[in-house]
This record gives sequence, structure tokens and C-alpha cells, in this order.
Amino acid sequence: MPRIVVDAMGTDAAPGPEVEGVILAAREGLADVLLAGPEDILKQELARRGARGLPIEVVHASESVTMDEAAAKSFRRKRDSSVRVAARLVRDGKADGMVSAGNTGAVMAAAKIILGALEGVDRPALAAVLPNSKGKAAVLLDVGANVDCKPQHLEQFAVMGETYYRVIFGAERPRVGLLSIGSEEHKGNELTREAFGRFKELPLHFIGNVEGRDLYNGRVDVVVCDGFTGNVALKISEGLVEAISKMLRESLSRTLSSKVGYVLSRKAFRDFKRRVDYAEYGGAPLLGVRGVCLIAHGSSNSHAVKNAVRVAADFVRGQVNSKIERELAGAVQPGI
Amino acid sequence: MPRIVVDAMGTDAAPGPEVEGVILAAREGLADVLLAGPEDILKQELARRGARGLPIEVVHASESVTMDEAAAKSFRRKRDSSVRVAARLVRDGKADGMVSAGNTGAVMAAAKIILGALEGVDRPALAAVLPNSKGKAAVLLDVGANVDCKPQHLEQFAVMGETYYRVIFGAERPRVGLLSIGSEEHKGNELTREAFGRFKELPLHFIGNVEGRDLYNGRVDVVVCDGFTGNVALKISEGLVEAISKMLRESLSRTLSSKVGYVLSRKAFRDFKRRVDYAEYGGAPLLGVRGVCLIAHGSSNSHAVKNAVRVAADFVRGQVNSKIERELAGAVQPGI
Repeated sequence: MPRIVVDAMGTDAAPGPEVEGVILAAREGLADVLLAGPEDILKQELARRGARGLPIEVVHASESVTMDEAAAKSFRRKRDSSVRVAARLVRDGKADGMVSAGNTGAVMAAAKIILGALEGVDRPALAAVLPNSKGKAAVLLDVGANVDCKPQHLEQFAVMGETYYRVIFGAERPRVGLLSIGSEEHKGNELTREAFGRFKELPLHFIGNVEGRDLYNGRVDVVVCDGFTGNVALKISEGLVEAISKMLRESLSRTLSSKVGYVLSRKAFRDFKRRVDYAEYGGAPLLGVRGVCLIAHGSSNSHAVKNAVRVAADFVRGQVNSKIERELAGAVQPGI
Repeated sequence: MPRIVVDAMGTDAAPGPEVEGVILAAREGLADVLLAGPEDILKQELARRGARGLPIEVVHASESVTMDEAAAKSFRRKRDSSVRVAARLVRDGKADGMVSAGNTGAVMAAAKIILGALEGVDRPALAAVLPNSKGKAAVLLDVGANVDCKPQHLEQFAVMGETYYRVIFGAERPRVGLLSIGSEEHKGNELTREAFGRFKELPLHFIGNVEGRDLYNGRVDVVVCDGFTGNVALKISEGLVEAISKMLRESLSRTLSSKVGYVLSRKAFRDFKRRVDYAEYGGAPLLGVRGVCLIAHGSSNSHAVKNAVRVAADFVRGQVNSKIERELAGAVQPGI
């Protein structure tokens, strides 16, 4: 059974969603779970929720990182933060993977520094899982771990994203695209034009340049870009979903008949919301680190925490990391 | 009265939407309109729609550029294309501005080469107008004219976008933001970090870095980025709106009660669709060229063409270009 450590102090409402999430995960037998955070509080919370007898172990951490702390500073200063304790458990083999819904920068810093990179990986990359209109999902990477990239980094991202998609979504031959501004090979910026040539040589199903609209239409499974572009893409998507929901609500409440319509179609809206809710996919994996690191959204509820534990366990069982190392050893031209 | 030339062969359904669009524009007295394209056909179409007596002049162009032609190639080969004829009319002072719903690359190439750049502008930029959840609009630039940019280019984009917003949307002091991946000054890539320092010195209301989500929440009026990032942002937004509409329709038609709900809330959906429809804003201005160039969507209908004529006329009346030149002469540090 995979052993997954959850940073108990990550979500905006910590430790409630984490404690409930690991209880759900343990009850469903998804993993053996460790919970890193203030021991007294966590034990109390677990007892209060009737977790006695479940395979949940508490590991004490005296500090936690807040959402607005600079990642590098918090890393240096807080040696006993729950996220560092979680990463050390993975490094020392006491856990196979970690889940944190904390400050993304701080989690990435802890994982990159404490766990280190896989053989053949220059730069770990953060991958986001996005629902598409075909009812499936696309993986977009990098979404923020590396703002300035070289072509060989994108090449490694392609191999890592493809392997992850293959294992986690059970696809035999995921379609990999390079995010650009036109489908032709010569379209794009300096980075993507050079990366295109390298991608053609990779032993994976490269479908060429894809455009922003392809992220959501189901035409591609793995979309590769630098971390600046990917982060902008992700935040725009989140912002647009929020804005559309708000505008629709306003439009719907403007007339009596549409108020009635709203009530009647409430079920449809819930269904829709569930389909675009990335909590279903358990957060963003930091690919390329020695170990498993899932970064969940700060607003995660217990359901999202549980899903993150499930995905982390699937990641371990599917041996994603050793597959990535094997692929990279065979596939990628040496970088500079 | 401003004189605006419309490329009659731009939209996917050309010349129907163009002919109807200029008739609407002329009837509402928005501008004196010229129509560039095959003379015989256009005169016939105008007569058939009862345009006699309206201030619409046809200028013959024997060729047209298709949507999938490479911009540079079509520019060299088709010297008498409707878009080149339109640009020449502006260059020669026979029109004040042009509107085209054709192949964006070909329109940009024609406008940049034939019209040339304003004093102080190294690179013209394409600006998209995006509706936000406050019921207002934000301008995003560059969305595709310049894929690889230097900091001084972003600086010029800021001045051009701010001037455009001020004149067209009647805002006294538009809020200008730099598109990045975190609000702190040090967040971003090499380009945005260097641009941030320059933006602080500009005599405009710079609110610092903004994130993707701010594009749609009304926190910022003018958003500046390189043309690669901007194009990706725009295409993702279009794709996501499409995907959400599709998913909502499916969710709504899944149950009888929501089918009833759908019928009742149809009016609300129409209202919503109108609010996110960028056709209301008449297309994307190519800022920084000597003359006015509005690029409308290939799927534009007559209403969108009419709105583009209106915006082009407002652009002329508001003397956007001379204001941009004045701002740039005073504001921007010399580039490299």
C-alpha cells in the first residue's frame, strides 16, 4: 500500500479539510496516510472525527507557511514547517509521496530542494489537469515552476507529461502538442520554434503546435509550454470561469421567467460545475522530483484532499518516476 | 466626416456581411464608407440591397487573400488584393482608416508595410478588447503582432493601449497593468521584470503586475504583454467560452426539468452571449500604424462590420494617433 504524507496546514481552512480528507482516503483504503502538522491539534481533530483504528499517523511539525510568504524566505526560516517535514519524510523513504495545498511557491521550493530531481531532469515542472468539453482531461505543463525555459526543458516536460498522462489516465498513446500561436511549424516564438524541431525526434505522439483553444476542445492530451505562459493560461482560465459564472447568474436573475428557469436548471448547473472542477483531479503534480509531490488548490475541501491522496497513490503504484527516467535516458538529446 | 474603407472580401461569408455592414454604417451616418473589392459584384450587391443614395463608394480590387494563405507570400503575390487596395487608400489619404475581417497575418502585413509606423513606434501592436464581469471592457495588447519582444516594446504598447482606451472608452485615467504571474515586482520572466522598472517611470496610472484572472474581473483597463503570451491568452479565452457553452448546453438538456429551465432562461443566455460577444467592440485595432486599421473576426456578421466602422471613425475623430505620438515623444526612454 502506498504511503502518502499530507501537509495538514496547507488549505485556507487548515487543518479541517486535510483531517477530513485523510479520513476519507483511509476509509476508502486509498493509501496509508501520514499527516504532518501540530501533533496535539491533529490528534484532537482526528479523535473528534472518529478516526481511531484508521491507518493515519501524525508526524509533528511545529511551524506552517502562510499563503503570502515569499517561498525562498519561508524555506530558509521555517525549518520545521509542515511542508518541509512532509518533504523530508518522502526523502527519507518514510513516505512514497506528499500532498500539500499550501503556498505553491513554498511547496515547490521544499520539494525541489529536499527531494531533488530525477535522473535526466534539469527542471521539475508543475502540471495542471484541465477538464475539456469531451468530458476528458488535458494536462498542461509547465504552469509555473520555470518562468524562463530553454528548448531542452520543454522537451523534458513533454516526456514527463506524456508519461504521467499515460499512467494516470490509462491512455496508450497520448497526443502531445506544443502550445503556440498557429499550427504551422514556423509559427511561434524563438523558444517554440526551436523546441518544435526537437519534439519531432521524440518517440511519442507529437501532433505539432496547438493553440490556446485546443486546451479545452479535446484535440490534445498533453500541452507543453514554458512556466510563464502556462501560469498565465491557467490563471486566465480560472478568472474566465469565475467571470462567466457571475455574468450568467446576473443574466439569469434579471427576469422572473429566468429566475424560474434558474431554479429548474439548478441541477444542470451543479452537474456543469462538477465537470469543470479540477478538485476532481486532485491537484497539480510537480513532475520530475525524486518522489511524488501533488500540489492542491488552497481552497481545497476534504473531497479534493482525498482525491489528491488517490492520485498520489496511483502515481506511486504506476511507477511514473521510473518510467520518466527510462524514457528520458532513451529519448532526449543531451541539453546545454 | 471620417472616411473609412472596408475590405469587402475579409469575412468567411464575404462579401455579404461587409456589404450589409457598410449599408448599416452609412444609414446611421457613422462614416463615409468606401468598399474595396470586385467592382461588378459589389455594385450589384449594393443595388440589390437598396443602397442607392448612401455615401458608399466602391473601389475595385481584383484579388482577395484567403484565410489559410501565409501572410508574407500573399502580400508579395497579390498586389491587387482587396486588403492592399484598402491600405493604399489610407496611405494616399483617400481614406482615414481601414477595416478588414480577413486573414489577420495578411492584414497586419499590409498595414505595417504600406502604412508604416507612427513616429516613436518600433513595433505596431494588435489590441483585443475583452468584456469583463463589471460590464466594462479591458484592452489586452499585444495579441499577436510581435511574438518576441524587448522591454521597450512593451513600454510602447503600454502608451498606445492607454491612449486608445482613454479616447475610445472615455476613461480619464485608465489603469495599466503588466501581465505576469504574481503581483510582486520580482515575479515574472526576464522580459516582464525589466519592463516593470520602465513602466514605473511612465506618466500613466501603472498598477503593477496583474495576473491572468484580472483580465476578466474589472481590476485593470489596459493589460500589456508580448504577442506570444497575448495570443495564447486570447485563444484560450475563446476556446474556454466555447467549451463552457457546450458543456452547459449538454448539462441543461440532460433532464426534462432542465430542458424546461433552458427554455425559460433562454433570454438570459442571449443577454449573456451579447455581453461576452466581442463583435460589440468592432474588432482589434492594430495600434501604432500611420492610419487606422481595425481587424475584425473572420466570422463577423453585418452588425460586427458596422461596429468596426463606428470604432474606426471614433479612432479618427479622437485623434488617437497624434495623441500616441505626443505621449511617446514625451514619455518613453529611447530603446535599443
